[in-house]
Amino acid sequence: MIGVFDSGIGGLTVVRRIFELLPDRRVVYFGDTARLPYGTKSPETVTAYAIQDAQFLLERGARLIVVACNSASAVALDALAARFDVPILGVIEPAVEAAARVSKAGEIGVIGTRATVTSGIYQRLMARLRPEAHVRAHATPLLVSLVEEDWMAQPETASIVRRYLEPLCGDGIDTLILACTHYPLLAGVIAAAAGPAVTLVDPSLETVLALKALLDRDPALAASLERGGGGQFYVSDITPHFRTISSQFLGRDVGELRKVSLE
Amino acid sequence: MIGVFDSGIGGLTVVRRIFELLPDRRVVYFGDTARLPYGTKSPETVTAYAIQDAQFLLERGARLIVVACNSASAVALDALAARFDVPILGVIEPAVEAAARVSKAGEIGVIGTRATVTSGIYQRLMARLRPEAHVRAHATPLLVSLVEEDWMAQPETASIVRRYLEPLCGDGIDTLILACTHYPLLAGVIAAAAGPAVTLVDPSLETVLALKALLDRDPALAASLERGGGGQFYVSDITPHFRTISSQFLGRDVGELRKVSLE
Repeated sequence: MIGVFDSGIGGLTVVRRIFELLPDRRVVYFGDTARLPYGTKSPETVTAYAIQDAQFLLERGARLIVVACNSASAVALDALAARFDVPILGVIEPAVEAAARVSKAGEIGVIGTRATVTSGIYQRLMARLRPEAHVRAHATPLLVSLVEEDWMAQPETASIVRRYLEPLCGDGIDTLILACTHYPLLAGVIAAAAGPAVTLVDPSLETVLALKALLDRDPALAASLERGGGGQFYVSDITPHFRTISSQFLGRDVGELRKVSLE
Repeated sequence: MIGVFDSGIGGLTVVRRIFELLPDRRVVYFGDTARLPYGTKSPETVTAYAIQDAQFLLERGARLIVVACNSASAVALDALAARFDVPILGVIEPAVEAAARVSKAGEIGVIGTRATVTSGIYQRLMARLRPEAHVRAHATPLLVSLVEEDWMAQPETASIVRRYLEPLCGDGIDTLILACTHYPLLAGVIAAAAGPAVTLVDPSLETVLALKALLDRDPALAASLERGGGGQFYVSDITPHFRTISSQFLGRDVGELRKVSLE
């Protein structure tokens, strides 16, 4: 199975893409809803949680792990790769590759959580791929809460997005990476605020395209994965609200959510 | 020592009141910053965390526990009282007593997290104290993020507060309980949106007044507490951002924040 974890239910946007692009693959998902969010927490804490999350998925039969959380991808990917003997895919490298490819002027903006932005990883990866490009990263932490509270269509949200994007758009970016699983649900509002000259990059889509390419390149890995589609969904806490927004992130009814404790 | 815990650093607003009203008492504080917030999580998860938090404070020498977190006070107080042999004070009962006292018409609003509002505890306690009063509770979860991101003075925040208060004020409340440690930092914005006919009740202040009364009534308990003022501050995660807002909540430099792990 393909293991996918996130700090909460936002990573279901990645599962949604797997269901679209790799419909025959089975997914085991873990959302750490008892300890979310990760994006406001320190690299040490996020790394410790990420190791527990990956361990859980491996115990449930995952043969490769997708780290759907940008904050965990930003700070914990090396620790996970060093510890576990399966392919570990983060959401950042595929997004940086896409931005390097689509950006005409090499003026690239990144919006994400404080943990993601503070890590500086988007700048480091871009410096390798396209050294002359400029990457400006800006923390936009309120957007997570606005999505989780289903305030996507409120005028205050549009106003907050405009305020957050002002410095990036003032710098003349032509590409914007939505570096948090929640932000694609605000893509319309973000696109309106950024204007038609800015191309949005959705890391969920780019990551699942990279996953597809990996499986095409590695038939043995692909053959080791169960077939049949669908998924098993585990979380560390359940509330009625989590249930409702889970289906919104997945784009369809999430079915049974099973509660497990990692502590 | 007086033990105080919260899901994060918001409970420092209670410590601030202890320093003002009981300046000679020593405080040991725990903020569960590695797992915050509690207000979006289930009663079972919040109760499990609250028990760990209280246990930690008792091990550090606390002789009584103040549950500074409204969400934990709403769902975990009975479990804590059943398990531990020291006085346990929540922030809800003192606030309900104050509201019952100050409200002229008995039309009382409550704003808080989803966990607090869903618990229905404000209505249950008021039904005992002042049965003819009407309590309307409304979840206003975005306010926590807005305070933590230091957006208190932004126009979007005022607009969100007005939208949240509209149904309560439309119902003609004359008293409003700010049922989350973060909300007193928005008291100005909330007062402006609620208008002059509405009296705000700050549970931090009412709780420390209740604590003071308890110590006056129980000289043996008071004598068992160390004197000398000041406090020790423990958290389960530290980031530069937590450090900055800690001082804002405490109203003075928080000094050394020590990181401990409860897991």
